[in-house]
Amino acid sequence: MKTYLDCYPCLLRQALSAARCSGASDNQQHSILLKTMKELSVFPTSSTPPQLAYRIHQCVQQLTSNLDPYRDDKDQATQQALALYPELKKKVSAASDPLEMAVRIAIAGNIIDLGVADSYDLDATLKRVLTEDFAINDLAALRSALAQNLSVLYIADNAGETVFDRVLIESIVGSVTYVVKSGPIINDATYEDAVAAGIDQVATIIDNGSNAPGTLFEQCSEAFRQRFAQADLIIAKGQANYESLSDSSAPIFFLLQAKCNVIARDLGIAQGGTVLKRQEIN
Amino acid sequence: MKTYLDCYPCLLRQALSAARCSGASDNQQHSILLKTMKELSVFPTSSTPPQLAYRIHQCVQQLTSNLDPYRDDKDQATQQALALYPELKKKVSAASDPLEMAVRIAIAGNIIDLGVADSYDLDATLKRVLTEDFAINDLAALRSALAQNLSVLYIADNAGETVFDRVLIESIVGSVTYVVKSGPIINDATYEDAVAAGIDQVATIIDNGSNAPGTLFEQCSEAFRQRFAQADLIIAKGQANYESLSDSSAPIFFLLQAKCNVIARDLGIAQGGTVLKRQEIN
Repeated sequence: MKTYLDCYPCLLRQALSAARCSGASDNQQHSILLKTMKELSVFPTSSTPPQLAYRIHQCVQQLTSNLDPYRDDKDQATQQALALYPELKKKVSAASDPLEMAVRIAIAGNIIDLGVADSYDLDATLKRVLTEDFAINDLAALRSALAQNLSVLYIADNAGETVFDRVLIESIVGSVTYVVKSGPIINDATYEDAVAAGIDQVATIIDNGSNAPGTLFEQCSEAFRQRFAQADLIIAKGQANYESLSDSSAPIFFLLQAKCNVIARDLGIAQGGTVLKRQEIN
Repeated sequence: MKTYLDCYPCLLRQALSAARCSGASDNQQHSILLKTMKELSVFPTSSTPPQLAYRIHQCVQQLTSNLDPYRDDKDQATQQALALYPELKKKVSAASDPLEMAVRIAIAGNIIDLGVADSYDLDATLKRVLTEDFAINDLAALRSALAQNLSVLYIADNAGETVFDRVLIESIVGSVTYVVKSGPIINDATYEDAVAAGIDQVATIIDNGSNAPGTLFEQCSEAFRQRFAQADLIIAKGQANYESLSDSSAPIFFLLQAKCNVIARDLGIAQGGTVLKRQEIN
């Protein structure tokens, strides 16, 4: 997905939010805003939002020397999600369609995103996403793909959301490889976040060799790129993975909540929609 | 009030919104964003938000050659408000404290602001503001000042809000001079907007010689500046007038809704608060 003009103010807001979360002084915050506006002014308009966000968060890291500003937020999100885990498992067991329930749970967990907003309401989101109609519903295609494939490449998004992913992974019969970031970026899941969520008990965890948001191939390791190219079935979580992979030709199912109106418009749905979208391969 | 760092993303959003409202092409919208970021980068940090907004809207006007993009919105807002006028008058007549009710009505009308957001809910705002506690309540001081002064300088904000101002003006015993902009800027009231609201029947209408948002003295006419300097009692409506006059030493009562969190923080109240604030004169 290209960067829309509406992304510019949002990326500037995100820079300020990251600067503050990193403990930047007022002067540093101002410098970060100036540097962000410079980046936004010179970056090619064909860039995806995660490419821009990556540059911006790199600026924040360099100026504040804080490499993991969202560490505490990530730990809290994981603990909050783990406390919900037994209840989520019960919901799947009791569901008339356990796979659909597990998919809904995984999508609900995508609300744990500190790039889009500074806070979120997990309980309210869970209630909503477990019952509302999907805005885009390719569940039948996902069900069929899961039945035909013995392995799934599962590209993670945020820490805490990892626990919700675990519930879905436990509903998948085939083997799952769970892809995390190689280093901290916003509240995206890294290896330790995945382990803290218990993903190591249900999947093989690998990293993509990159600490950029989403999946920016130019930043990823050769090993991950090969893995991606060979995968027969990919589940990609969250907005940044949609933004960076929506133009690729790969057998992807995007699971996300359309938290911002730009993505919602790109998907042709209302903001806030629950999305299970199969990538259209030309 | 100084420009806070949170104003930067908001001003960028406002530039894009104004560009679209002006019928700018995608390329023009992009140019306007680039120009806005340049302005935001070089403007002194001591500038007030209306000073920056003025420059930005000038850029939009120059690039699109649309001098009055909010014309239709302004006319609609005035018509919508005029339809409510009889009901508003009845509320004042029936109130145990007619002045308080008229003040609340004037503040409720301040929701009609297309700088802060692209839309507003007038009915819901009216219901809320007519009953909720003031976040800042200097009504007793205003009542006393109105009793002591024979004339009031009333600095207007937006078209449509003008009708709500009229209700308050009709509750004031002294003579009122109503100050509008000399030319269009966002949805701020000009002479014709004031007349459309019937203000000419209840007050003397003058303009401040400027088409900047708020009250930027450096842009205003000498005649207005003198008038302001000599006034014994001033009512100033809305956020932009607060932003541009909050550091002045004048006998002002600010009537506004704290629609954005930056102003709310500056005032020390929660966002959305109903404000009747007497200027503290040192």
